[in-house]
Amino acid sequence: MTIKPLNLITTKLSPLTTMVSILILIILAFYSFHFPHSHSLKHPNKSTTFQSLFLSSSSNSTISSYLRTLTMHPHLAGTKPNSNTALFVLNHFTSLNLKSHTTSYNVLLSYPLHSSLSLHLTNGSFINLPLTEPSEPSEPGSDVVHAYHAYSPSGSVYTKAVFVNYGRDKDYETLGVDVKGCIVIVRKGGGLGRNTVVEKAEKNGAAAVLIYNDENDTWRNGFERGNVMKGVGDPVSPGWGSVDGSERLSLEDNEVLERFPKIPSMPISANVADAILSSLGGNLVPFEWRDTLNLKDKGVISHVGPGPTMLNFTYLGEKKIATIQNVFAVIKGSEEPDRHVLLGNHRDAWTYGAVDPSSGTAALLDLARRYSILLSSGWKPRRTIVLCSWDAEEFGMIGSTEWVEQNLINLGSKAVAYLNVDCAVQGPGFFVGSTPQLDNLIREVTRKVKDPDSKGVSVYETWAASDGEDNIQRLGRVDSDFAPFVQHAGVPSVDVYYGKDFPVYHTAFDSYNWMAEYGDPFFQRHVAVTGIWGLLALRLADDSILPFDYLSYANELQLYRDKLSNVLDQKISLLPLTTSIKEFALAAKEVDGELKELRLVETSGQFVDMKRRAMNDRLMLTEKGFLDGDGLKGKQWFKHLVFGPPNDAEKLDFFPGIADSTTRSSGTSEKETPTEIQHEIWRVTRAIQRATSALRGEFT
Amino acid sequence: MTIKPLNLITTKLSPLTTMVSILILIILAFYSFHFPHSHSLKHPNKSTTFQSLFLSSSSNSTISSYLRTLTMHPHLAGTKPNSNTALFVLNHFTSLNLKSHTTSYNVLLSYPLHSSLSLHLTNGSFINLPLTEPSEPSEPGSDVVHAYHAYSPSGSVYTKAVFVNYGRDKDYETLGVDVKGCIVIVRKGGGLGRNTVVEKAEKNGAAAVLIYNDENDTWRNGFERGNVMKGVGDPVSPGWGSVDGSERLSLEDNEVLERFPKIPSMPISANVADAILSSLGGNLVPFEWRDTLNLKDKGVISHVGPGPTMLNFTYLGEKKIATIQNVFAVIKGSEEPDRHVLLGNHRDAWTYGAVDPSSGTAALLDLARRYSILLSSGWKPRRTIVLCSWDAEEFGMIGSTEWVEQNLINLGSKAVAYLNVDCAVQGPGFFVGSTPQLDNLIREVTRKVKDPDSKGVSVYETWAASDGEDNIQRLGRVDSDFAPFVQHAGVPSVDVYYGKDFPVYHTAFDSYNWMAEYGDPFFQRHVAVTGIWGLLALRLADDSILPFDYLSYANELQLYRDKLSNVLDQKISLLPLTTSIKEFALAAKEVDGELKELRLVETSGQFVDMKRRAMNDRLMLTEKGFLDGDGLKGKQWFKHLVFGPPNDAEKLDFFPGIADSTTRSSGTSEKETPTEIQHEIWRVTRAIQRATSALRGEFT
Repeated sequence: MTIKPLNLITTKLSPLTTMVSILILIILAFYSFHFPHSHSLKHPNKSTTFQSLFLSSSSNSTISSYLRTLTMHPHLAGTKPNSNTALFVLNHFTSLNLKSHTTSYNVLLSYPLHSSLSLHLTNGSFINLPLTEPSEPSEPGSDVVHAYHAYSPSGSVYTKAVFVNYGRDKDYETLGVDVKGCIVIVRKGGGLGRNTVVEKAEKNGAAAVLIYNDENDTWRNGFERGNVMKGVGDPVSPGWGSVDGSERLSLEDNEVLERFPKIPSMPISANVADAILSSLGGNLVPFEWRDTLNLKDKGVISHVGPGPTMLNFTYLGEKKIATIQNVFAVIKGSEEPDRHVLLGNHRDAWTYGAVDPSSGTAALLDLARRYSILLSSGWKPRRTIVLCSWDAEEFGMIGSTEWVEQNLINLGSKAVAYLNVDCAVQGPGFFVGSTPQLDNLIREVTRKVKDPDSKGVSVYETWAASDGEDNIQRLGRVDSDFAPFVQHAGVPSVDVYYGKDFPVYHTAFDSYNWMAEYGDPFFQRHVAVTGIWGLLALRLADDSILPFDYLSYANELQLYRDKLSNVLDQKISLLPLTTSIKEFALAAKEVDGELKELRLVETSGQFVDMKRRAMNDRLMLTEKGFLDGDGLKGKQWFKHLVFGPPNDAEKLDFFPGIADSTTRSSGTSEKETPTEIQHEIWRVTRAIQRATSALRGEFT
Repeated sequence: MTIKPLNLITTKLSPLTTMVSILILIILAFYSFHFPHSHSLKHPNKSTTFQSLFLSSSSNSTISSYLRTLTMHPHLAGTKPNSNTALFVLNHFTSLNLKSHTTSYNVLLSYPLHSSLSLHLTNGSFINLPLTEPSEPSEPGSDVVHAYHAYSPSGSVYTKAVFVNYGRDKDYETLGVDVKGCIVIVRKGGGLGRNTVVEKAEKNGAAAVLIYNDENDTWRNGFERGNVMKGVGDPVSPGWGSVDGSERLSLEDNEVLERFPKIPSMPISANVADAILSSLGGNLVPFEWRDTLNLKDKGVISHVGPGPTMLNFTYLGEKKIATIQNVFAVIKGSEEPDRHVLLGNHRDAWTYGAVDPSSGTAALLDLARRYSILLSSGWKPRRTIVLCSWDAEEFGMIGSTEWVEQNLINLGSKAVAYLNVDCAVQGPGFFVGSTPQLDNLIREVTRKVKDPDSKGVSVYETWAASDGEDNIQRLGRVDSDFAPFVQHAGVPSVDVYYGKDFPVYHTAFDSYNWMAEYGDPFFQRHVAVTGIWGLLALRLADDSILPFDYLSYANELQLYRDKLSNVLDQKISLLPLTTSIKEFALAAKEVDGELKELRLVETSGQFVDMKRRAMNDRLMLTEKGFLDGDGLKGKQWFKHLVFGPPNDAEKLDFFPGIADSTTRSSGTSEKETPTEIQHEIWRVTRAIQRATSALRGEFT
């Protein structure tokens, strides 16, 4: 025998033993070649090794340098500086040897051409009010766009000003003054979206709207830009991706017209607001408003108007088709390449956008760097990972929405989850939102990531010790790119961020310097967000059985039912809803048992690839059950009946269809009210039944 | 060594060789146990063996005996005799050791309580006209339901009769006589559904409608029962399965009311029609109608009325909630149990229903018998096979529709195909309809099944030699249970039958005796249908790669585009549609290449289970691309934009949304017309783009 025995085998071997051993090895090799999947079964801990490598590869300095580059110039969607950021992101991906590409859309954006605002006092004098922040010497230039509301119509008004507090229905009632033909001054904070504020002013006959943010004392020269469009996505391609050569509705089409307000509006700074409001006569500010005014304003604002001061306000804007770019890096899965974990962040900003969104973009770039380290170390994710850099979020989630609409059919069965980061860091404190089947995964992952602000503890520990304990928000809001994924496509989603309500939101002060001075001086919060984001994706991409827990979803639904029963009339029956939730909880429990069994079989090394795939398909499909083809009444693009935007978020922030029916009903005849609410309860009931059906995976 | 060497091995073995051999066997056994899938790879011809066994197990005598039993009594949906057939089918499945179950729904059905019709001549005499067929001595009893139109409103009218030919718009124009307040007499055959006939009469001011069938000379005493409901499925649970405890709309709800006609109607026999029509005065029958009259009627019908003869017509019916039963047998798949091949046939009949539908039910029962033989011979289908016996099809595909609505979310990803047989045998000649990706499979399968009427040739050979060559119909009609599967759920489907336009359709003459004498004296046509049906399912359940061909679909779409370009105005651009079809064809070609490669890899024995699964998922999902969430305008339950019911099938029998927009536009202003048609073309374009996207399986 000339074949040297392998050193694994003890030395004193008979030729027989050797031959047999070699034969066995040959057979094993043959099988291994033909059944490559058996490999991964033998290395159950391989993926945790890569998770550790991912955690150890963090770096605050690379993130801060990415942020510096990204925030050199303001990068408004549809402008050259922003297509430069697209190129920067694409080049970064490419330089890391990640397969990358850009997907462009031609969409209707909106820019200011000219605006002016002057205050005309009764003595005949007038003051021209500023329309943007003072130039900051520390910033590279005053190339920031003037304060405006995207999609505001153009208009020119010379009329009296009137203060309407938050601009809610009850504020107009409290005011008790006719605002017809006036310019209403609204302060931010009543829980209404910008579009709704303008809509309500319009309904009350106002001629124009000026909105200011009095929530902080330091940056009172800041103007909070924003869009006032109703709904999300390109308004001239509602429901489909506006790719080259696709249908585009006319601007005169009713479906387009109803997306925009009819009266002009603009943001003003708190200082500008003070100048206007301090000059008003008329009734005294109602006591209940006064009480909540910013301390600085309490001495300044005493009367609500209208007038006697007059405002001369002109806004001239243009809506035009512009090209936007989403940039992607794709890390193809080795075993299930057709299952995708999507990580997304928008790239466009109103100004320099250091917080919003470049802190998230910097995190995304660092994530890519760290994943490329894993790849060079032999990591082959089981499923495909896609890094997404969205454009035109600030104009109404347009980049992500167009992509979701274009890819809806494949998203339906091939997207495992969408992980969103918008403003990665606004300040201290961990915040997270998710669809409830991911709650436990979030808890597990945050236990593995260091708290950026306290030594020796995990993000989870600080979070769990905070006021809301380990409170997880839900994703019914329409304020970032998770909205199309959750509310239109039914993809399980997460949204992660540090800090909240940062004072320079959408102003020219949202710069690298602000971040370095106030938001995250050591960039460790960035590191924490990147760690959580990346680890969530690693688990979702590599766990052979998806880490979804529907018991958590069932509990959440039960909680909503209980809240609902406190709000609704006794005449409305919650029985169908209660029953459907019970049934869903039962299915979740059964599946929990199945999963445990499947994991056991897996550990014992049996061949279960197809079984796992079938189970994962069920876990993925379940979220789609909550979608309803007809969508929410009056806003049918929103298909999710558990999480979506209610017309009045103050009342109920879940089951938006039911919430709206209770709002609508206050005003209609007594006979109709319960029928409509009951019908919406039935619709949610059936959504939960569909989810149950998907979770069980059985035909009746 | 006491172990006896296996006789596979030659006799002169050294102990060493023996030991090695045994070791190899042990290792192989170990692997085989842990990787059970490898079995099927090593027996690629096993499934053809079972196909041969299936074909050789045919029996015309069992089918005829099943049919005898099924047609002993009339079995109208919602009645005791029909729940007896449910039990019979269930017991049959159970006796074959098939896992079976029943799914019940409570739905709104409609039955006659009282009706009368008399002819009042100018001389004062009157004749009471028969309302049902004469009792047949050969039949077990006169327990057949009186002729009626399900969902007709009740009403009583004493007025003049008027003949309106087929009751089409152009017939009323040709007639040139005011039919207001009259009872219109309509003959069947103008291409309009019953509901549309009544709707048009209502629009013209008629008080009631009587419909007769003059298409045959022999059974002129037959009354063609039917329903006059608009749309399909339970009218009080539109869009959801009406299971126990689910929401039920009020009969006063607009959505319910618009499903029913406002004027009463009833079927009459050709003889009754003759009695009425021969007594009419007024204008002569227009020449163009006269020409197409039944020969027997040419001498009888000379004037159109109105009057002078009067008719006294009363119909009193009741709509009531009744329980219906779908019966299922499930043969669980061994490797992909979560992928389902569905075979369906309805069970309820207007009368004895020997053709409609019991010939299909008998075929289903025999299919079950033959599958159980395969199972005892060791057959383990790769995917799950479900045999479905639907209820209440005659009332508007209610049993299948409720089930499809209830299971929609799982059907979306887990149904491979739906294979329908309604009237299995109406007479000679093979007919088939399908969604186009199944065309080739149908051709392959019909080559394997013997022609029942010519010795030595296959069904395919006779079919291909017939007039229409191997013509395959499409499934845009709403006249059997494939409608919800194709048009609501987007499941690839087939519909198979022998013979067409049988003369005793929906009459009391549709009995076992009629079948044995005229329809299929030797029951060999039943055998052929069962063979094709069963073999289609075997291929779809056992082929490791689904036998779907999208090149055929691309060709069909191209054909439709060409037809459309001949019909439409030059101002309408077909470019988007043309481009989308080209792109779809390209994707189909690429996939064709991928499939060939995958089959090659498979033959070489490599492990490709996950790859096949991913490819099959794409092939299944593609059909769903043609669905549009918003559905057809004005009939939004119908989601398929390629196959569905146009308002006027004479013009275009594909792209129903486009077809309807051209119909709607004839009448509206010139400016609006092209916009609406163009928008519908865009919608179809996007549907084809979605299908392309699903077929490619890639995100953009």
